[in-house]
Amino acid sequence: MQKPLILITNDDGVEAAGLRSLIEGARSLGELLVVAPDGARSGMSSAITSIHPIRLNKIRQEDDLTIYSCTGTPVDCVKLALDQLADRRPDLILSGINHGSNSAVCVIYSGTIGAALEGCIVGIPSLGVSLDDHSPSADFTEAVKYGRIVAEKVLRDGLPRGVCLNLNVPNIPDVKGLKVCSQTRGYWAKEFQSAQDPNGKDVYWLTGEFTNQEPENVHSDEWALSHGYAALVPMQVDMTAYHALDPLKKWEI
Amino acid sequence: MQKPLILITNDDGVEAAGLRSLIEGARSLGELLVVAPDGARSGMSSAITSIHPIRLNKIRQEDDLTIYSCTGTPVDCVKLALDQLADRRPDLILSGINHGSNSAVCVIYSGTIGAALEGCIVGIPSLGVSLDDHSPSADFTEAVKYGRIVAEKVLRDGLPRGVCLNLNVPNIPDVKGLKVCSQTRGYWAKEFQSAQDPNGKDVYWLTGEFTNQEPENVHSDEWALSHGYAALVPMQVDMTAYHALDPLKKWEI
Repeated sequence: MQKPLILITNDDGVEAAGLRSLIEGARSLGELLVVAPDGARSGMSSAITSIHPIRLNKIRQEDDLTIYSCTGTPVDCVKLALDQLADRRPDLILSGINHGSNSAVCVIYSGTIGAALEGCIVGIPSLGVSLDDHSPSADFTEAVKYGRIVAEKVLRDGLPRGVCLNLNVPNIPDVKGLKVCSQTRGYWAKEFQSAQDPNGKDVYWLTGEFTNQEPENVHSDEWALSHGYAALVPMQVDMTAYHALDPLKKWEI
Repeated sequence: MQKPLILITNDDGVEAAGLRSLIEGARSLGELLVVAPDGARSGMSSAITSIHPIRLNKIRQEDDLTIYSCTGTPVDCVKLALDQLADRRPDLILSGINHGSNSAVCVIYSGTIGAALEGCIVGIPSLGVSLDDHSPSADFTEAVKYGRIVAEKVLRDGLPRGVCLNLNVPNIPDVKGLKVCSQTRGYWAKEFQSAQDPNGKDVYWLTGEFTNQEPENVHSDEWALSHGYAALVPMQVDMTAYHALDPLKKWEI
């Protein structure tokens, strides 16, 4: 039987330690095609590049492992891999391991999650994996362990149509287990630090503080993470607010 | 009574005809604060800029209308406006009018919709408006008319928590009416044209064809648009696939 084909990308770039850890963790699961940005693309969400062309650079080719870097966004990487590089339809897309969590509303901004959503749009089971540690020298052991557990389940059972997975792993040596969660309601506040450039012109650095609007919700991903669990959130690409359809019908003309 | 404060942005840039049309259409609705990208930011989704600082440039100030350009993304524009520029909380955020539709799965990639979602995250009623015509010289008359109708309803009635609106208007002179719709299921295929740069190196241009996976669904936004109606989709920032929570619970460890 042919090995599963697994497409891997991330948003921290092809040199990131989290990507290397994910590749090592996934090697025994199948044939790996890695297409990752040539540098950091954090916070790129589902951005696509249409104003200029994108380039690919093959940087490694060995048995069951091919690695390309790409000048585009994480979503561009997935699109290019599927359209130009993969010799068959991947069985799974893995995105990560992100340096830093992508829980709660961060899913909206995350390039890691953008890549997983892209897989979902075209019907390929997809999983984003993030570790709640921004350090370049973070220990990815537990994130690899849980990422692999979930990836194996996805390869075996598949996922419902239109659904992908967002896995966040806390930065502790002994994660307590895996919890299936909902996306925590919250927002970022106090977002900018103003500064001046060397010419005295005002500039603004994005920073900010996360406000959790449901800290007591034991079913939310923030709760799971802060209590030592890996948090698995099923996400959907259909963003329709179905509960709002009927109330809005009265606006029809 | 104080006039409503309306924050306006877009993803085609501060010089775009669609933005100018929206500003003119919204002027009598309240005080306008416009913060728009200094150039095209199509396809930027909910991308944010954190790797370098952002700059603002005030380019117009008159009674009830202030316009800034910003070096960041549409979401950066909303964040900066709320954090640094608005003297009170806006009553409404308008994003657009986009040159080209943002229906179906395009909401995932659209900077216009990214800006509306950003407003929604912080609890401000938000509306993205798009015209199904990419031409720089498109006629925005009908899009302005329907955008204004919906904006007035939002100012009067508000929106449910966690919900924003996506309005797409067909490119015809007499739009038949307004339909409340769901996001059409579909995907983009045949996405890249390969070419060579002047040095003979391969490059890839994003292009592609949209595949509608539910062309018969009379409740979908693609159906409404192709049948001459303005399509209004309520969108939510909570991307949790609630129907998938129970089936996944068996994966918990």
